[in-house]
Amino acid sequence: MKTETGTRYTKEERNALRTALANRQQLIKEKKLPVIVMVEGWSASGKGSAISSTIRLMDPRFFKVYNMDKITEDEWRRPFLYRYAVRMPGQGQVAFFDGSYLDEAVKDHLVGLTDKKEYEKVITSIRDYERSMTDNGYLIIKVFLNVDKKTQKKRLKALQESKNTAWRVVDEDLWQNENYELFAKTYEEARAATATEDCPWHVLEVSNEKDMEGDLLSVITHAIDSRLALLDEKGRDRRLTKNPFALKKIKPLAKVKLEDKVIPEAEYRKELDRLQKKLSKLHYKLYRKKIPMIIAYEGWDAAGKGGNIKRVATALDCRGYEVFPIASPTAEEKSRHFLWRFYNRLPKTGHIAIFDRTWYGRVMVERLEGFCSENDWQRAYNEINEFERDLTDSGVILVKFWVQIDKDTQLERFTERQNTPEKQWKITEEDWRNREKWDLYETAIDEMLQKTNTVFAPWTILESNDKYYARIKALKGIIEAIEAKLEE
Amino acid sequence: MKTETGTRYTKEERNALRTALANRQQLIKEKKLPVIVMVEGWSASGKGSAISSTIRLMDPRFFKVYNMDKITEDEWRRPFLYRYAVRMPGQGQVAFFDGSYLDEAVKDHLVGLTDKKEYEKVITSIRDYERSMTDNGYLIIKVFLNVDKKTQKKRLKALQESKNTAWRVVDEDLWQNENYELFAKTYEEARAATATEDCPWHVLEVSNEKDMEGDLLSVITHAIDSRLALLDEKGRDRRLTKNPFALKKIKPLAKVKLEDKVIPEAEYRKELDRLQKKLSKLHYKLYRKKIPMIIAYEGWDAAGKGGNIKRVATALDCRGYEVFPIASPTAEEKSRHFLWRFYNRLPKTGHIAIFDRTWYGRVMVERLEGFCSENDWQRAYNEINEFERDLTDSGVILVKFWVQIDKDTQLERFTERQNTPEKQWKITEEDWRNREKWDLYETAIDEMLQKTNTVFAPWTILESNDKYYARIKALKGIIEAIEAKLEE
Repeated sequence: MKTETGTRYTKEERNALRTALANRQQLIKEKKLPVIVMVEGWSASGKGSAISSTIRLMDPRFFKVYNMDKITEDEWRRPFLYRYAVRMPGQGQVAFFDGSYLDEAVKDHLVGLTDKKEYEKVITSIRDYERSMTDNGYLIIKVFLNVDKKTQKKRLKALQESKNTAWRVVDEDLWQNENYELFAKTYEEARAATATEDCPWHVLEVSNEKDMEGDLLSVITHAIDSRLALLDEKGRDRRLTKNPFALKKIKPLAKVKLEDKVIPEAEYRKELDRLQKKLSKLHYKLYRKKIPMIIAYEGWDAAGKGGNIKRVATALDCRGYEVFPIASPTAEEKSRHFLWRFYNRLPKTGHIAIFDRTWYGRVMVERLEGFCSENDWQRAYNEINEFERDLTDSGVILVKFWVQIDKDTQLERFTERQNTPEKQWKITEEDWRNREKWDLYETAIDEMLQKTNTVFAPWTILESNDKYYARIKALKGIIEAIEAKLEE
Repeated sequence: MKTETGTRYTKEERNALRTALANRQQLIKEKKLPVIVMVEGWSASGKGSAISSTIRLMDPRFFKVYNMDKITEDEWRRPFLYRYAVRMPGQGQVAFFDGSYLDEAVKDHLVGLTDKKEYEKVITSIRDYERSMTDNGYLIIKVFLNVDKKTQKKRLKALQESKNTAWRVVDEDLWQNENYELFAKTYEEARAATATEDCPWHVLEVSNEKDMEGDLLSVITHAIDSRLALLDEKGRDRRLTKNPFALKKIKPLAKVKLEDKVIPEAEYRKELDRLQKKLSKLHYKLYRKKIPMIIAYEGWDAAGKGGNIKRVATALDCRGYEVFPIASPTAEEKSRHFLWRFYNRLPKTGHIAIFDRTWYGRVMVERLEGFCSENDWQRAYNEINEFERDLTDSGVILVKFWVQIDKDTQLERFTERQNTPEKQWKITEEDWRNREKWDLYETAIDEMLQKTNTVFAPWTILESNDKYYARIKALKGIIEAIEAKLEE
């Protein structure tokens, strides 16, 4: 942990630093560096004015400032990191966060919203999130504005006494001042737990506001310069983190038996009807208990994902679910962390999100088509496991399906699509090209299944040579997962 | 107004209709038709299950269902149509709205949230919005589920008696049943006021649920077929609506005097400081009074928009404003109504949105580069005036700046940019190409200024040969607009 204090800045020096920072903007843009500046600190430590002072000479079209103090109801209903992740800047952009997850985590804990174990999980997920962001090219600059108990009290009083600012002081701020020592200790521990080589904390004393502003400018400019210098060392790979999660064994696809997994039509119709009715009732329970759910589908082309999803969706109340077909990322999505577009689609409590293809594209198509580096997809197993851990920790029911068919069955279905006018749109040249890479894909998928079959988010294989069988198994799997959660 | 009743459907017929609708999906996609299905009606009229029944055979990856009953705090803080506009589907997509703006408007009025005059304005803006959507290629299908007083009472009671559904009945529903006659009359009048040839209302009686479902399916399929048939008549232009808004006269650009609009540097520094301090205080007042504001900048390349915006932004609390640089639309934006991307960026109450280029691109670059048809940009003057009327009606302070320079000054600035290494990124080949079209642009801009200089959202010309002058004038204009609003 670094503390910058003691430096004295003249007005001219501060302005020179501001100009220096403004001059970095064009470089950041050219080098496509995404930058997050987190300004954390005590209530009334002057976070807002510190940011105002920092950006004074910057081009306002180039950065965004987010005040993270107020959490909307919609945000309350999603995982903890959701509101930060959806606001991550794109390449070449800068986001300032006025208050961030450290403060939110500490406050949630001290007011009793989270117990010790939950709090520790949140701190871990923050550290992992920052590592994953940094590994994916982000620069995160973390600053903590420090103020002593007396000064904070004086500042709060001054705010209360002016009618222009009185509304800004809330009970929680006064409560923080009363419990200053407890907060100081907790903040310090939280900073220690989230300080890493790539993302250190910079603690700035606000006793002299002008000097603090100088320090802040210098911290930011220095961090940008260090990162830009690193960027110029071409080809520097990010470290691979060992996957720390307990995995369950899973069979390679070649050993999945498909022939005997069939259901006669009459039985299928009966079971389908019974299971859909059951699921329908369970959906209401989820809604009332405000439990969110994610159903993730991956599988071979023509494996029957679409029809399978339809049988599940039909059983659900249409106001309580959404299906997200995942195609190649847009330009906006490409310029951010690969999980951004999934953060954006997380269900709120009581709702179900069904993904037709998912974040696993990173270790399948992106790996095989070279859309990311080997280091990127190698890291992704762990990044995905962390992402899914955060989801399940936050109370999401997560079901992951791999829809499996054999190569001959795919050929049959491709040929049928080609020969049926109403189905021709479903088959493209690309499907045929992908088919040629079947073996490469199978290797990648086997690796994926093994490395992401965590105890908290295991895969279910849907044997789908017989689509009836796969649909019934999917419905049963979903029902089981919901029932297990309801019994918790 | 159309009422479909009396038809009896067998189960097979309903399923045939469902299949017919499912078969339209591929056509809708191919023809890039965006479709909105609004299911309105009484509380407990079964809107949700009607939609469920309709979509049963549709591909769930292809449509979205929005339950519009609950309004979030964030939505409350934006203009009335915001929550509907941001959810408009893209080309080839279908959106079902479970409850919509008709019901919201009627309820707001009957509970006393809007007086008669405000209510009438909302109804007008709904009609205009639907016309603008239809003119821009949308198909809007409007259905109202009708239930009589006794049946509604019975249904509400049944819902209350089951523990799975009791939570769905709220006081407002019971209050509606008690005041059934008042609601019936108001709904009917509202439907009459918003029924047009392109967007008629279909009133369906729910006395027999199964037949109603059949009617609903048949209404939707029929509407899609009629629109698809029209689409095949190539080149059919949408009617031009006469601009119904009072306009103020405005000088053509050629008559704007620039030479004498200068401020000496010393005076500029003093004034800038004074006005920024004033604006800063006013921003807090806006925040406390929860008044939203939009500052729209248009102007020639190199007219000094960026520097002007910076001087305004510096005076604002960075947590309360956002600057939106508007570049060419993304694929997602192109596939929707041209105003969608601006609806998405509307400020919430107490916040300021600064647009660096705006929705006026439609009648400048899109017109001149042929990115839309002549009919499209001819219609756009009125569409823009309506959009701005809705903004100001909802309480937004709207300031529109045209930043004006002469052709020689532009040449000087282009040349300086070209010759200054740090500024070269600011100038591109495209800028030089646009400069060649100066006269064409000037004609288009003069027409734009005249046709959109409404009494409720007039233009301010910022003479910017001297950038100091333009900045001071902008600050003064903004301050004046805020003060005028605060005095209302």
